[in-house]
Amino acid sequence: MNNQNEVLIKMVISNWDLQNEKLDSMLASFSDEQLLKETAPGRNTGIYLLGHLTAVSDGILPLLCLGEKLYPQLHEPFIKNPDKSGFEYPSIADLKTYWNNVNTTLKNRFSTMQPNDWFNRHTAVSEEDFAKEPHRNKLNILINRANHQSYHLGQMAYLK
Amino acid sequence: MNNQNEVLIKMVISNWDLQNEKLDSMLASFSDEQLLKETAPGRNTGIYLLGHLTAVSDGILPLLCLGEKLYPQLHEPFIKNPDKSGFEYPSIADLKTYWNNVNTTLKNRFSTMQPNDWFNRHTAVSEEDFAKEPHRNKLNILINRANHQSYHLGQMAYLK
Repeated sequence: MNNQNEVLIKMVISNWDLQNEKLDSMLASFSDEQLLKETAPGRNTGIYLLGHLTAVSDGILPLLCLGEKLYPQLHEPFIKNPDKSGFEYPSIADLKTYWNNVNTTLKNRFSTMQPNDWFNRHTAVSEEDFAKEPHRNKLNILINRANHQSYHLGQMAYLK
Repeated sequence: MNNQNEVLIKMVISNWDLQNEKLDSMLASFSDEQLLKETAPGRNTGIYLLGHLTAVSDGILPLLCLGEKLYPQLHEPFIKNPDKSGFEYPSIADLKTYWNNVNTTLKNRFSTMQPNDWFNRHTAVSEEDFAKEPHRNKLNILINRANHQSYHLGQMAYLK
């Protein structure tokens, strides 16, 4: 591990934090009424995207061996199924609390990781595959999830 | 420079390539008629987003000291100004050619870079500031630009 690696890890984590801050400021600017609306005609609602992003972030915990999901009940309505599948969603206030708790928990657990840990395999790749594909490490998960979040932030911005 | 750095650089470049491939496959699936439409009522059109993403990617060349922009004429209509500002846009066929040329050029120039080059400052940061903020390097530009692209890909997906 050298200094460049540590700079790089900080860059990836800062970029992840930045996407979270963007969603935080969107959430602060939207009313509950806005969040219940579709981001475009016939498209995902704001509340679905908030639940989806919370559930995906929550899934980072087991994937990075940082513990169990905080809200496994979000998987079914917000990952496995599309919007408007008939599930009763948590209230927006509850979803915002979940979102904040997931982010705070991730931030705290990331801070316990050593730089080298980020280069270990994540739990969705076998040891055998990882030997051949060393890029399938924990840091790569964070790069991918930040991009996934940006993708949906671009859509949520349409609630403005 | 060690092996972990090289793995990390490859991860960031692969992630960048992935975003470009996503736009490539969207472009292959949309008709010109679809690309001329708004992504949502009152929002950016597909053609504007294509021009915008092409212009932003083109701007990576000077920022990473990899040469001059190929299409500086895209700056005014697609970066400096929002959609529907009265500019006459290039044809969709031309914009697709520009998009492909910019990506191919970036790919070729990236392949000439040594791993260490990615940790050097980009041209928008002074040597003085870079000494204090070593994360403002070339690789960070690519991480940021990939997220920016994801953001707009989420919106372009609404043309489907």
